[in-house]
Amino acid sequence: MKYFIEHKLLNYDGSQLQSLFAYKNFGLMGDSISVFRGSCRVEQNEMVDMEDVLAKDWIYSEDMLHFIVEHFDMDLEKAIIRQRLLIATIKEELEKFGVKTLSRSGDDLYEEDKKLSVSISTLSPVSSMIHCGLNVSKLNTPIPTIGLGDFRIQDVLGFGESVAKHYCDEVLSMRLARCKVRGVS
Amino acid sequence: MKYFIEHKLLNYDGSQLQSLFAYKNFGLMGDSISVFRGSCRVEQNEMVDMEDVLAKDWIYSEDMLHFIVEHFDMDLEKAIIRQRLLIATIKEELEKFGVKTLSRSGDDLYEEDKKLSVSISTLSPVSSMIHCGLNVSKLNTPIPTIGLGDFRIQDVLGFGESVAKHYCDEVLSMRLARCKVRGVS
Amino acid sequence: MKYFIEHKLLNYDGSQLQSLFAYKNFGLMGDSISVFRGSCRVEQNEMVDMEDVLAKDWIYSEDMLHFIVEHFDMDLEKAIIRQRLLIATIKEELEKFGVKTLSRSGDDLYEEDKKLSVSISTLSPVSSMIHCGLNVSKLNTPIPTIGLGDFRIQDVLGFGESVAKHYCDEVLSMRLARCKVRGVS
Amino acid sequence: MKYFIEHKLLNYDGSQLQSLFAYKNFGLMGDSISVFRGSCRVEQNEMVDMEDVLAKDWIYSEDMLHFIVEHFDMDLEKAIIRQRLLIATIKEELEKFGVKTLSRSGDDLYEEDKKLSVSISTLSPVSSMIHCGLNVSKLNTPIPTIGLGDFRIQDVLGFGESVAKHYCDEVLSMRLARCKVRGVS
Amino acid sequence: MKYFIEHKLLNYDGSQLQSLFAYKNFGLMGDSISVFRGSCRVEQNEMVDMEDVLAKDWIYSEDMLHFIVEHFDMDLEKAIIRQRLLIATIKEELEKFGVKTLSRSGDDLYEEDKKLSVSISTLSPVSSMIHCGLNVSKLNTPIPTIGLGDFRIQDVLGFGESVAKHYCDEVLSMRLARCKVRGVS
Amino acid sequence: MKYFIEHKLLNYDGSQLQSLFAYKNFGLMGDSISVFRGSCRVEQNEMVDMEDVLAKDWIYSEDMLHFIVEHFDMDLEKAIIRQRLLIATIKEELEKFGVKTLSRSGDDLYEEDKKLSVSISTLSPVSSMIHCGLNVSKLNTPIPTIGLGDFRIQDVLGFGESVAKHYCDEVLSMRLARCKVRGVS
Repeated sequence: MKYFIEHKLLNYDGSQLQSLFAYKNFGLMGDSISVFRGSCRVEQNEMVDMEDVLAKDWIYSEDMLHFIVEHFDMDLEKAIIRQRLLIATIKEELEKFGVKTLSRSGDDLYEEDKKLSVSISTLSPVSSMIHCGLNVSKLNTPIPTIGLGDFRIQDVLGFGESVAKHYCDEVLSMRLARCKVRGVS
Repeated sequence: MKYFIEHKLLNYDGSQLQSLFAYKNFGLMGDSISVFRGSCRVEQNEMVDMEDVLAKDWIYSEDMLHFIVEHFDMDLEKAIIRQRLLIATIKEELEKFGVKTLSRSGDDLYEEDKKLSVSISTLSPVSSMIHCGLNVSKLNTPIPTIGLGDFRIQDVLGFGESVAKHYCDEVLSMRLARCKVRGVS
Repeated sequence: MKYFIEHKLLNYDGSQLQSLFAYKNFGLMGDSISVFRGSCRVEQNEMVDMEDVLAKDWIYSEDMLHFIVEHFDMDLEKAIIRQRLLIATIKEELEKFGVKTLSRSGDDLYEEDKKLSVSISTLSPVSSMIHCGLNVSKLNTPIPTIGLGDFRIQDVLGFGESVAKHYCDEVLSMRLARCKVRGVS
Repeated sequence: MKYFIEHKLLNYDGSQLQSLFAYKNFGLMGDSISVFRGSCRVEQNEMVDMEDVLAKDWIYSEDMLHFIVEHFDMDLEKAIIRQRLLIATIKEELEKFGVKTLSRSGDDLYEEDKKLSVSISTLSPVSSMIHCGLNVSKLNTPIPTIGLGDFRIQDVLGFGESVAKHYCDEVLSMRLARCKVRGVS
Repeated sequence: MKYFIEHKLLNYDGSQLQSLFAYKNFGLMGDSISVFRGSCRVEQNEMVDMEDVLAKDWIYSEDMLHFIVEHFDMDLEKAIIRQRLLIATIKEELEKFGVKTLSRSGDDLYEEDKKLSVSISTLSPVSSMIHCGLNVSKLNTPIPTIGLGDFRIQDVLGFGESVAKHYCDEVLSMRLARCKVRGVS
Repeated sequence: MKYFIEHKLLNYDGSQLQSLFAYKNFGLMGDSISVFRGSCRVEQNEMVDMEDVLAKDWIYSEDMLHFIVEHFDMDLEKAIIRQRLLIATIKEELEKFGVKTLSRSGDDLYEEDKKLSVSISTLSPVSSMIHCGLNVSKLNTPIPTIGLGDFRIQDVLGFGESVAKHYCDEVLSMRLARCKVRGVS
């Protein structure tokens, strides 16, 4: 499990949620988490969550911190548990930056009724994938939101790296935890 | 996914981490989380974590709030991700009770260097299982600990029920999240 | 596992065998069985069974009772065992309506050499899917057939609901059966 | 998938539901169904179904036709779907012998309220296993039963062979069905 | 597991690495290995290995012996282990023909720095697939190569059949090996 | 994937084929291959291969080079493919030491009719395991054998390390190979 921080602006339109994204773009081979910053605008035909499609929801944010995670297994249920853990990790990481007012509701983070995040998990033909975007700016979003800017996170990509590093460490520690127990009856 | 709150004292000695624990003891059929209160003393021969066995660690607490989770699949990696999410959930639930000083390190919860929890995941011949114990009292533990008593959680089993309910809700919402996305390329 | 009975006519042309069919059309989230009535005409390019494609078989029926089942796992062998069980269930359900002359041959139902059913199982990118169609009318089919009309099943969708309900109940009871046994040596 | 008919009497006491039963006893390597005849008496400590253990049910029959199925995968849900299909197959095979009064309820066969069968599925450390026993005699059973003797099945093992052959054929045909379809979107 | 030897020339352009290739072309149902001879020219848009795509490598050989393997499970890691075993098998088979100068490096065969083979594994929507091509001629290849012609393999398809037969036998013997062991603690 | 070379004598009696062997004995956490030297004597009650038990074969060698591999997944078919690849790797590694007279037959290595190796794969409750032993001495074996001593392999453990290193490298390269391909249709 490796991570990569892309320092160039990269706008997210949904097409990034594709197998081998990190390998093709950043040369990362194997399980990975990619971090970058850019706007977020996903049109209906790129949406992965059919609930949003049916509700005709749309996703827009002027400036987001994006995470794209790829695990090379094909268990969507597992990807979704990992996604929840990633969201919990982001909340915990923000606490280290002094932000203690957030609550997690499934794969969403809120400050009261203002939404910080968007997130989705799905399968590709060869892997499972997670996208999570955190608002940096809360301007012009279609619903009430809050952004990392409101929390005075100055080094947005640096914060992203903290999350990525933490997630990678946790994946490794979970791998080891899997390898040190005996079975029970 | 169902939960059960056992109101009678039930001391944990490791033998409870056994397949069908909730069914045989509380009549719960299917994925479940059982909650009970009692001491925790696990002898070496009941220990599941070989790291503890090799380190000759021992586990003792006079009074703990216990969770035993059983999922009827046999993917230990998935069980361990679920375990981490359960621990994150316990931390989040404590925040609702005003406890905002905890940090999660893998499957452990700490207030500074004082440990609140013990936890382990493993496989049975027919399922995967998680045990998590939270100190109620911090007396006489072999390492520095903190307990729910220190956080003025009066209704310990009531707190346990909040966690159990939250975990059940999250398992259900993850199941639904798995069933509403299209694949990507 | 839920079912839905669509009372409006819906002709089957193969494109309905698509992931999230029940969610997108009927709002059913999770494992599901959808029941509807309409003609059945599947062109070669929509055919899923390569044996039929190679044999240049075509599928046509003026009026069929259709079942579309979706399970959110990706084990095609399991889908095919479920498909056989669904076909056995349809036969058993017809027996309750007094039809005792059918025999099952794999995933087909026959009265002597007259075919009652068509059926196929396959994988989508996120699930496994089953289609089964039962002739209501036997008119103009390319091979000798029999239809529910010949069995004096008046309430065709009502019969479909009996099957769907039975299948949902069986999936639930199999889930519970999985969760109450110990392993053997 | 092979079958073996044991012509010598072999009483079932639960210990036969063990991995490699067919290989160790009859030399069958690989997925198999073994058929034999003998009494059935399973004591509590050999019982696999915890529901029976909790209910203090006991299983006794003076003379049964037994099937032991072993599949060398370790998916208990799949084993249970296969078990249901085996029970449906037994009912269908009895129909060919003129017995048209049975109904299937999950993994049980009944004539009205008289039970013909007992059955269980579970996992071994290397495989999944199914036992099914059909009463030949209905004498001295702890609950109301019916037996193959009541249906004038004279050649009990011959009937068992029909079932075994049919089950083997179906496993093969399901394997082939898995290998001839394209995926859908 | 069956094999088929196509005696007509069949040039490989990457489009052959498609689910049900053997069934649609040669009528083989189930796990299979197909053997044929022809040129090999895979354009970038048909390439499966993103490493080659990123490196702008291209694959060309005037005359190759091709193997296409399809297994009807969807475990890419398993497919890759099988692929390595197939390559080891080809080397071993060549040894029987007196060729003892080859070494295997992962999924490649070399004589010193001259490459004999190209190979790739991937997933289709319903199966896992392997392609392996062995140069017959070493003329005009983009990198230094060696060919079966240099080893005086006269009957190229006959050699292919030896490999295919050996691979089929090994798959069968591995299946049996899986079915004759007890578990350990 | 890590390896460990135990330089102290360690006789193999079958009890070493147990989950967490490398962790408990050598502190290796995660997938591993352990290498040691010692006699090999496996009594019937420790035998894992029921074919040997039924044939009343026994396994004895005065001096062997042993490999114990543990992978923390529970797919016995995959373990057996890995075992075959390990055996092929041992043969290839011996070729680098100038030994070119061996042939592989499944999971056995022979020089003509003299057997160099014993090997078995099985499941533990939490992992899959492989044992392979290569005769160093051919003295007093119950069947005709050949030993590494006959091949003038002086540094037996050094040879073992070459194999272990090669196997670890191959596991890593297979992991990467799994993570760089797109799916096909």
